[in-house]
Amino acid sequence: MNPQTSDKDRVYIFDTTLRDGEQSPGATMTLDEKLQIAEQLDDMGVDIIEAGFPIASNGDFDAVVAIAKRAKNSVIAGLARAITADIDRAGEAVRHAKRGRIHTFVSTSPIHLAHQMNKTQEEVLEIVTRTVTQARNLIDDVEWSAMDATRTSIDFLARCTEAAIKAGATTINLPDTVGYSTPEDYGDMFRQIIEMVPGSDKVIFSTHCHDDLGMSVANSLAGVKAGARQVECTINGLGERAGNAALEEIVMAIRTRHDAMPYFTEIEATHLSRVSKTVAAASNFPVQFNKAIVGKNAFAHESGIHQDGMLKNAQTYEIMTPESVGIKETTLVMGKHSGRHAFKDKLRDLGYELGDNQFQEAFQRFKDLADRKKHIYDDDIIALVDDEMGSGSDRITLKDMKVVSKTGGEHVCDMVLDVDGQDVSVSVSGTGSVDAIFNAIKEAVGDDPHLVIYGVDAVTGGTDAQANAHVRLEMNSRIVSGRAAEPDTLVASARAYLNAYNRLLMERGASAQGAMAG
Amino acid sequence: MNPQTSDKDRVYIFDTTLRDGEQSPGATMTLDEKLQIAEQLDDMGVDIIEAGFPIASNGDFDAVVAIAKRAKNSVIAGLARAITADIDRAGEAVRHAKRGRIHTFVSTSPIHLAHQMNKTQEEVLEIVTRTVTQARNLIDDVEWSAMDATRTSIDFLARCTEAAIKAGATTINLPDTVGYSTPEDYGDMFRQIIEMVPGSDKVIFSTHCHDDLGMSVANSLAGVKAGARQVECTINGLGERAGNAALEEIVMAIRTRHDAMPYFTEIEATHLSRVSKTVAAASNFPVQFNKAIVGKNAFAHESGIHQDGMLKNAQTYEIMTPESVGIKETTLVMGKHSGRHAFKDKLRDLGYELGDNQFQEAFQRFKDLADRKKHIYDDDIIALVDDEMGSGSDRITLKDMKVVSKTGGEHVCDMVLDVDGQDVSVSVSGTGSVDAIFNAIKEAVGDDPHLVIYGVDAVTGGTDAQANAHVRLEMNSRIVSGRAAEPDTLVASARAYLNAYNRLLMERGASAQGAMAG
Repeated sequence: MNPQTSDKDRVYIFDTTLRDGEQSPGATMTLDEKLQIAEQLDDMGVDIIEAGFPIASNGDFDAVVAIAKRAKNSVIAGLARAITADIDRAGEAVRHAKRGRIHTFVSTSPIHLAHQMNKTQEEVLEIVTRTVTQARNLIDDVEWSAMDATRTSIDFLARCTEAAIKAGATTINLPDTVGYSTPEDYGDMFRQIIEMVPGSDKVIFSTHCHDDLGMSVANSLAGVKAGARQVECTINGLGERAGNAALEEIVMAIRTRHDAMPYFTEIEATHLSRVSKTVAAASNFPVQFNKAIVGKNAFAHESGIHQDGMLKNAQTYEIMTPESVGIKETTLVMGKHSGRHAFKDKLRDLGYELGDNQFQEAFQRFKDLADRKKHIYDDDIIALVDDEMGSGSDRITLKDMKVVSKTGGEHVCDMVLDVDGQDVSVSVSGTGSVDAIFNAIKEAVGDDPHLVIYGVDAVTGGTDAQANAHVRLEMNSRIVSGRAAEPDTLVASARAYLNAYNRLLMERGASAQGAMAG
Repeated sequence: MNPQTSDKDRVYIFDTTLRDGEQSPGATMTLDEKLQIAEQLDDMGVDIIEAGFPIASNGDFDAVVAIAKRAKNSVIAGLARAITADIDRAGEAVRHAKRGRIHTFVSTSPIHLAHQMNKTQEEVLEIVTRTVTQARNLIDDVEWSAMDATRTSIDFLARCTEAAIKAGATTINLPDTVGYSTPEDYGDMFRQIIEMVPGSDKVIFSTHCHDDLGMSVANSLAGVKAGARQVECTINGLGERAGNAALEEIVMAIRTRHDAMPYFTEIEATHLSRVSKTVAAASNFPVQFNKAIVGKNAFAHESGIHQDGMLKNAQTYEIMTPESVGIKETTLVMGKHSGRHAFKDKLRDLGYELGDNQFQEAFQRFKDLADRKKHIYDDDIIALVDDEMGSGSDRITLKDMKVVSKTGGEHVCDMVLDVDGQDVSVSVSGTGSVDAIFNAIKEAVGDDPHLVIYGVDAVTGGTDAQANAHVRLEMNSRIVSGRAAEPDTLVASARAYLNAYNRLLMERGASAQGAMAG
């Protein structure tokens, strides 16, 4: 970044993909996926990674600990409600980081106080002082959030903020929890609070915006203009409902319009495209073609006038380049003659470090793929490895499958599954080939989860591209996602279903007890 | 709407899904699809529908004429560059409407003048006067757009605007063509122009924003706050690159935050969900789960705290209801015993009026579906009918197909196609079942288009849902999309490929000559 820029213009990027993002119904991720994403965020220069909500479940706690232990530069934050046990548990998790942060929150809006908490304003003030003090006794870096700040009266919000600062909070977050604000309102709130509250010059103010009315990015930047210097956001705008402000949009808006917004972040923007793909794959939330920065069409021009302009001078229609966010032609990398060493090098280039067993299996699958597919691109390898990392100690695996499918109605699947070490063979028909496959699995395992979503994308162009199947299942009020990449759509579909099903069998429970601060 | 609201607070909604939206690479639509969307926009209360760019191709011209003839309430606009022939052709097309509009544009920014147009400012001023005068001699309702207005100096923009108003323009559009603006800048531009330009109180000012930095909605609303009273937008934010401001977000932001933005539109918001689905299907641009207003997750809450709050009082976390945008539980509608009459009634409820032949075929496919699928939902019928309307005079159709697919590598497709009335039989293998199918089609027809995108979604939940396959093909620099809905994923994939392929064979050319004003 520009060396002349002063530290007061630095905007800290707080990524909550692994906490607020993972809370999206259906976006639950495995530990391995979380570790991979956290490593990429750390490498990209994210200042603070909110790694989870430690009290929510043992799985969440373990994820925060594992991410804290591995983090190189990022501060690792853990979320806690305004409850003693939550704050202790968050402290226990983040103390493993070089730099840890406890992020505690309480609702401040009249509607939350009356309908959800049943507390008076004086009681909330006492809670703020008590919980922030508790957190500060555990760690130096404490963030306090006023949940539903944008629907709170300025006077009460100022009193709460003052109490939090006095108790030792170092970051004050004022979220637009319901995605309700306009840029003008959101900026005014920060301006007023910063002016009214004694000690506000000693802390960092933070934005946290949701996109329910499509204004999360503009709201966040209005907050920055008004004095906030931390932005809470997620990759791909993942998050509950319409999601959070998208990290990639915030970063590129500040960078592209430095003339209008003289701030800077320390994000290495060329990583954005890759991190977006990783998060889309892990969450099974595909990015729409016309999504800003990271959509497939974000840099595509169709019209004759535009094409003409582009040829004459790219600047006529392009305010940023695809390269600046890390989009490159997917490169032909390797074929069937590539060896173990070349494959390891390639994995390292792509940002993967696999354990020995995982590497062996990935290499075997790479060789199988190379036998069947002419061209192998970076994206194929990414899909293959992501898929490998997603599977683990699965109770049910696919051993063999044959599908015969005819127009006019007959679709039969013969399948052999390994269920807890026993071979189970079934032959089942369905209204379509994929229906037959899913029916076969359900018959073999004896459960009947509800299929919420089924989809397939091709990983790269061309007809011999790998198929990337994703499945969402719901059973006993739990929603899980699964995915798999295979040259064959039907095998990919079967393995994605099993991937989701195996997750249903895992003891996790994070989604049932999750919570949020924004 | 509120009867007390004054007309000066009314914001006119100008939908350009069929023009700027259709320009997205891969989003090309058929005439039937355009007619269906136009009818839905008209019914929803869209004030102005930009139906196409008449000079671009005969297909575009015919679409604008057909939409103009059918429009009940909406003004129908046709786009024209600042060229005599363009304006004449647009006038010819829109004169069939009860109320037609010519929308003509010219670039005003120094970068466009220097690199693309090679014109001086004085030459551009002369062009504005001449072209707007020409348009006004053809029709009373003329919109003039200053392409790349946000990168134009205020003084020159004011001079151009003044020239356009003097020549008789009734609407002045100041687009953020490259998606570059911030709300503050965009509002300031309108404020200054409206103040500086004589006669600005006699015209309607219009916003037109792109989402490259994620701020298109906030920018549009900042324009409204500064005095603009027309917003140009698209369903689902469809449009080149990161797309245009999303109509549904603009409408719901104004409605939900009437306290902060005391304006109103005449849009019937309960239609939004349905129109969004129609446009997603016609363009083959799926809407991401976490898209505001119309994404699958837009109203979904996961976290325990939120669920608790929702149970106690929906208002604690919800600023609008799913019902307000027309989202309802997909209802079980009919089964195999439903007759012709019930099916016709249902189609009418869903907003379809089919011709006799189309109805016969749709009913036959409905009965076939009912034989194979237990529950038939509204969405299944919508997919089936949309699919029916998408096909027409296809040169190549699928007669018969059998696929045998095994784990371990063997995937064989036997296929019979009708190619221009001749049966062609092939038996081809591939790296996967879908690869084998696509290879079979390519072998039968003898071409080798590049497969850009392949994907499948389930139309409704459950394993016996219909599969909605979409395919994008590229050949000789043309990109086309195809789709098909079938109970079987493999048949859907084959038919989607053929749907795209048949479009490649149609003489259209709109995409090769397209242009844009925003």
